[in-house]
Amino acid sequence: MSPIVEHSTPVPSAAVLGPFGGGGHALMLGHVHPDADVLGTLLALGLALEGRGWTVTYGGPHPAPALLAFLPGVERYRTLTMLDGPIDVVVLTDCPNPQRTEGLIEQARRVGKLIVNIDHHPDNRRYGDVNWVDTSAAATGEMIYELLTALGAPLTPAVATNLFTAIHTDTGSFRYSNVTPRTFAIAAALVAAGARPEVVSESLYERRAPDALRWLGEALTRVEISEDGRLGWLALPTGLVPERIVESEELVNYPRSVASVRVACLLRERDGEVKVSLRGKGDVDVQKIAAQFGGGGHVNAAGCTVIGPLPEATRVVLAAVRRAVDGSRMS
Amino acid sequence: MSPIVEHSTPVPSAAVLGPFGGGGHALMLGHVHPDADVLGTLLALGLALEGRGWTVTYGGPHPAPALLAFLPGVERYRTLTMLDGPIDVVVLTDCPNPQRTEGLIEQARRVGKLIVNIDHHPDNRRYGDVNWVDTSAAATGEMIYELLTALGAPLTPAVATNLFTAIHTDTGSFRYSNVTPRTFAIAAALVAAGARPEVVSESLYERRAPDALRWLGEALTRVEISEDGRLGWLALPTGLVPERIVESEELVNYPRSVASVRVACLLRERDGEVKVSLRGKGDVDVQKIAAQFGGGGHVNAAGCTVIGPLPEATRVVLAAVRRAVDGSRMS
Repeated sequence: MSPIVEHSTPVPSAAVLGPFGGGGHALMLGHVHPDADVLGTLLALGLALEGRGWTVTYGGPHPAPALLAFLPGVERYRTLTMLDGPIDVVVLTDCPNPQRTEGLIEQARRVGKLIVNIDHHPDNRRYGDVNWVDTSAAATGEMIYELLTALGAPLTPAVATNLFTAIHTDTGSFRYSNVTPRTFAIAAALVAAGARPEVVSESLYERRAPDALRWLGEALTRVEISEDGRLGWLALPTGLVPERIVESEELVNYPRSVASVRVACLLRERDGEVKVSLRGKGDVDVQKIAAQFGGGGHVNAAGCTVIGPLPEATRVVLAAVRRAVDGSRMS
Repeated sequence: MSPIVEHSTPVPSAAVLGPFGGGGHALMLGHVHPDADVLGTLLALGLALEGRGWTVTYGGPHPAPALLAFLPGVERYRTLTMLDGPIDVVVLTDCPNPQRTEGLIEQARRVGKLIVNIDHHPDNRRYGDVNWVDTSAAATGEMIYELLTALGAPLTPAVATNLFTAIHTDTGSFRYSNVTPRTFAIAAALVAAGARPEVVSESLYERRAPDALRWLGEALTRVEISEDGRLGWLALPTGLVPERIVESEELVNYPRSVASVRVACLLRERDGEVKVSLRGKGDVDVQKIAAQFGGGGHVNAAGCTVIGPLPEATRVVLAAVRRAVDGSRMS
């Protein structure tokens, strides 16, 4: 069949709803380092399908992070290396590029009858048999809410909690420019259905270890700001602060919080690679910066991985950031 | 007249609407150290009344903080020492205790025909001629939204931005247990009316000075956690970090973010006094702790001022916190 593409329609069409009308075996397939928008949407859709008699498997190339252990049903999400078929529907959410499944997409194509790709990233590759890409959605969580509503699936507290967490995290707690009246209206429905904002927030933000603040303080004293104030960055060599601090803290938001900073950058060295997180404030497209290093993301939030020792990686990335920032100033 | 009291009705009654039906001169009166829920609601209501032909004065015992300079109309908010009459209606919002006006309430009673007290604090003293106290509201901002809706006043972008900021800050960015479906539904209406979440958030959280992160890091390395993990506190002597850091950072949220902490405490020494901020996680009522020292607030967020040198104040306050935490464990 030729692929179906639904572009930027907030409400799913019959073509998108079709695969979920019957029953069978569904695989909810996550990408590398799954975050809350991926896991929350896969779990919400999967749990809702189970309620309608489907058999559902959940998994991906990496396990769910410990921070998201509170998501209802996440204990069912497994690390997958081999896929067994047959599978009626394979669903990927919030995954713009199928390479981010580390080869599982190829297996899914062999054992799966239908690949459904549901995403809100503008650079989505439309790799599914059915592709629903709504770039107006602040989070894929909004799309799955619309899908479940269109299917008439009940919003259980477990489903609502997963979707609320997905939307909460992808909007930075309802703070980013992607937030619309629809985002808040959906949040209202999810809270009415049993999602508890304070429980989600406490689970996400109030789980620090007793010594975490000391390490966070240690890291923050190392943030650097360029002379013109427009670049802020934090370069963390391996072992300077414990890995759990680097991973669990939203460290990149700190240099972003300086008023003059237009692009914030977090560089984390690990195993000879440097993981780079970029955050912009609207006037600079950080997705384009990340793309120069084979990465991706959104206009205001993107990432990439750079090979090499930390000082060299920092130099190269900051040079690219500087070009983008100076370019935006001139335009 | 005998005072009118409307208790916990989310939609204002005719008695509450009455004073705003006509026209005349209104004073929007703030309390000491006005925050965004005070200023946002006074400005929103005042601007809406001006749209209906009222003459409106805005002010209180202290000026609006620099952090809130982005609120539309806040440049009209003045520091008041003397009130000139006659005034038809004096409105206080988010002010549980009239003593927090530093004597302006007594002047207001002399020159004002009617005192209207609109608040969501459970310990509100019902000091107005008309008292509308809705403890189910997450923020007074929700109540003013309902009031303007009932009055049929248009939600201009300026009004919507003030109310959105009031609700955003009093719910900790939609994270606290006071958030309801109504909170999100109102936020949806405010964003539809022109409030911009990313502009409000950037104004509130991304205004740090270039050196602020170094000082924040410095402060965080001093957070202490009790041996049993249930108390977290930060005691800041005068001059350790610049005043602007102490005031602008939500420092007390850091000890709160440690998983085991039940009550977090920030103690700031200034001019021989120690300002104390308390945050609880639901199982301990920090309002009761603050009340022991003449302070007040909500179950999960309260404050007080203690006289004395910092080490002694810290000892006394932590002892009270310890009693409350141990009491809650046993109950």
